[in-house]
Amino acid sequence: MARLSIRIDLGSETALGPGKARLLELVDSEGSIRGAAAAMGMSYRRAWLLLRDIEATMGAPVISAETGGVKGGGTSLTKLGRIVVDQYRRIEERATRSVDAELRTLSELAKSGASRKLRREPTKKN
Amino acid sequence: MARLSIRIDLGSETALGPGKARLLELVDSEGSIRGAAAAMGMSYRRAWLLLRDIEATMGAPVISAETGGVKGGGTSLTKLGRIVVDQYRRIEERATRSVDAELRTLSELAKSGASRKLRREPTKKN
Repeated sequence: MARLSIRIDLGSETALGPGKARLLELVDSEGSIRGAAAAMGMSYRRAWLLLRDIEATMGAPVISAETGGVKGGGTSLTKLGRIVVDQYRRIEERATRSVDAELRTLSELAKSGASRKLRREPTKKN
Repeated sequence: MARLSIRIDLGSETALGPGKARLLELVDSEGSIRGAAAAMGMSYRRAWLLLRDIEATMGAPVISAETGGVKGGGTSLTKLGRIVVDQYRRIEERATRSVDAELRTLSELAKSGASRKLRREPTKKN
């Protein structure tokens, strides 16, 4: 079945897409930028640039470094960072649900086209 | 106000996004791949590869070359090509409408964050 990928253009040149949303979630679950970057198979520098990009778009921090404490520091999402992720996932879910019929139409067209091509293959000699 | 960009992943590695949808529309209005490519500021080769990509995904032709006739040939969309564009635009419109409130929330957060930063700027000396 076809799947929607959502990118949200927020005025400036920067946008919020599946990669940045996933990165924020991973910073939260891994507790560090380094851990999140590794989980996504990207360099620390790339992850850091993406996070800086989100903060430039939103105009305020989306992650915060914690020093000391029982877990010995770590990085977590700010309230704004959490709202950004939540809204993104909400948008993704609602948008996908709203176009279920259209996605099905495209999927079925692609599937029937692909099988048509397969059926034709054996007789194609030139 | 924030804007949605929709990419539709259709099973395989290929996807249908705003660029391909626009390209199909331009092939239709310009009457040629060359004209469409020029209108999008891309090379003929790039446009041709994108069109081939859409056809691979859909498993059947989305454009058809017409030879002769009053207009002296030209390229237009096949019925499938037209359905693909129509469904894409429909999905874009419905999805955007369904998440109006969430897009507004993100836009307002970004705007208030940006103005907060601007207000802070003059006192930042370090």
